[in-house]
Amino acid sequence: MYLDNSATTKPCERAIQNINLALSDYWGNPSSLYSMGFQAQMLVDDTRKALSAMLHCREDEIYFTGSGTESNNTALIGAAHARQRRGKRIVTTAIEHPSVLETIKRLENDGFEVIYLKPQANGMVCAEDIKNSVNKDTILVSIMLVNNETGAIQPIKAAADAIKASGAPALLHCDGVQAFGKMPINLNELGVDLFTASAHKIHGPKGVGVLYVKKGVTIKPLLTGGGQEKNMRSGTEAVPLIYGLKGAVDSLGNISENLKKQKELLSYAKDCLTDTGLVTINSSDESLPYVLNVSVEGYRSETLLHFLEAEGIYVSSGSACAKGEGSYVLREMGLSRKAVDSALRISFSRDNTKEDIDALKSALISATQKLRRSIK
Amino acid sequence: MYLDNSATTKPCERAIQNINLALSDYWGNPSSLYSMGFQAQMLVDDTRKALSAMLHCREDEIYFTGSGTESNNTALIGAAHARQRRGKRIVTTAIEHPSVLETIKRLENDGFEVIYLKPQANGMVCAEDIKNSVNKDTILVSIMLVNNETGAIQPIKAAADAIKASGAPALLHCDGVQAFGKMPINLNELGVDLFTASAHKIHGPKGVGVLYVKKGVTIKPLLTGGGQEKNMRSGTEAVPLIYGLKGAVDSLGNISENLKKQKELLSYAKDCLTDTGLVTINSSDESLPYVLNVSVEGYRSETLLHFLEAEGIYVSSGSACAKGEGSYVLREMGLSRKAVDSALRISFSRDNTKEDIDALKSALISATQKLRRSIK
Repeated sequence: MYLDNSATTKPCERAIQNINLALSDYWGNPSSLYSMGFQAQMLVDDTRKALSAMLHCREDEIYFTGSGTESNNTALIGAAHARQRRGKRIVTTAIEHPSVLETIKRLENDGFEVIYLKPQANGMVCAEDIKNSVNKDTILVSIMLVNNETGAIQPIKAAADAIKASGAPALLHCDGVQAFGKMPINLNELGVDLFTASAHKIHGPKGVGVLYVKKGVTIKPLLTGGGQEKNMRSGTEAVPLIYGLKGAVDSLGNISENLKKQKELLSYAKDCLTDTGLVTINSSDESLPYVLNVSVEGYRSETLLHFLEAEGIYVSSGSACAKGEGSYVLREMGLSRKAVDSALRISFSRDNTKEDIDALKSALISATQKLRRSIK
Repeated sequence: MYLDNSATTKPCERAIQNINLALSDYWGNPSSLYSMGFQAQMLVDDTRKALSAMLHCREDEIYFTGSGTESNNTALIGAAHARQRRGKRIVTTAIEHPSVLETIKRLENDGFEVIYLKPQANGMVCAEDIKNSVNKDTILVSIMLVNNETGAIQPIKAAADAIKASGAPALLHCDGVQAFGKMPINLNELGVDLFTASAHKIHGPKGVGVLYVKKGVTIKPLLTGGGQEKNMRSGTEAVPLIYGLKGAVDSLGNISENLKKQKELLSYAKDCLTDTGLVTINSSDESLPYVLNVSVEGYRSETLLHFLEAEGIYVSSGSACAKGEGSYVLREMGLSRKAVDSALRISFSRDNTKEDIDALKSALISATQKLRRSIK
């Protein structure tokens, strides 16, 4: 039973079909001047159209990259370099994904002043803290929409308001990788300038990311060359993957309905897991219900993870991108060392069912029993 | 008839099979700590192994990126930043691919001094010119192995020798995109520190590039985050594409044998085209025979290209990455304006046959006749 959908997801049928169609019948170079080129470009633009409808933005605000990581790198470095003469403060949180944190650390080394906001115990950064940290010298604010380890939803609107109120020349970037496809997103209303999404978290293929750049906003491109994607991202477009992303978007169904169902499933999961008497819930009730972080005190995450795997259950000990290290997200939330070291992230897709939760519960009981025995 | 294989190639059966296998059965995140993760990582490492055998280098010298463009950007920016305290000169050629030229222009704007070497009439840069331009202040030399518009093979070994002789602290980067899979390459003997390749030029998928970084050479990564690819390139690995590249590599057959056959085919093509009395050959006899640049004086490239398309023949007016602009490569070689404006690039894959050449010849005659009539 796969319950690690925040790490990656199984590509859906339609994504695979689209990828194959592009590989077999539309393999021209989108930059070529003849029909085969235009046809390949059309697949790219069809995907752009699907995304603009989904995210409530213009088609020409959507750019394709090679990953969520590349989108984050492009947005942050591109924005910082475009605005570096107007100020030197960057505001972010201490619980961003490594592709944001590591990139901002590079900017810090380059001389930018960075404020890392800490989350509250519920995993959310406080709107008031954002307001207090954004000053007139701030050129970039980067806050994720949904945290990848706890599901905590961050107050993006508050960041947009803080920038407006302060008169800062700041661009607002939002890493939306874990929110994309899982909650309704209206980029117009969210008030962000830059937004990141990724295909492989919504049953699309690995190797394609999305970067939204609000019309009128200029950032420096990270990859230069042939000028593809209106000079925003050079490099031959990965047409099969981009069109695969369209298949994933087309298969999402009703995002609000899915979310409603998932809330029920999560509530069931919390009850089941609490019943075992083994776990403490780390995710707050206001979190996006696709991620559930728990601690199973007395058992080290990595060990438990392998025992769960033996029972056919796949979960993770934190972000897939932070192999084996204790979670800094949970530490920043103030969890005890013991709670951090025994944390598990259970993450869902729209395909998961109550039976999966039952299987998780049984496996958790069985795994901990075996572990206790093996320790004796 | 597709004769634009330097722009992109049709994905081969084995590449498509491998992509589908990864999408269906090995879709775990390579960073995940359980078996599904390891299995996905194994596909990535199998591809690395195939490439190291093909290119005569160590497995741990091969890194995967999202495109040849990303590999070039990473190599150049990474090398320049790693060595910036040791000198400020960069030596390159005026006929590099835009992903090299545009990136080096950025470095020039950042304060590096750049020498752009001009090619001779045969499309090759002179070894003596390289030697004379590499001085003790040189920290980076970037020269392509095969030019994408003419097939001209550049004297990489001379660049390696020039660096050694001058005692320069320079890293040697080589854009090998057009040479990869088409001529025997031994990275050990070539003497380069950094080498770029791309999957979609050898019947692999679009969206995956290769960067070779010689053991012991340190460059600054371009994309930071989860630390994938030993910190050289963060971002979830595009496993299906990477494994698709393995399929393409496995399908290459004997590169030397293919090259021999292609030499014969090119000779046939030159004879056929010359017979028409319509063309001048721009590629020199020493060029890699997979690319043939010709001028059809009296006819504008773009117009002719569309008339050829109507006859079922796909060629290009130059690099696919320089949509419609007159070729700077041919200009730098000293070709007349007329010759540049009427240039066509015909580029081959191992699948092309004499029949294809015959079809090209007929189409060229027919297209020019129709064009003459339409002008009257």
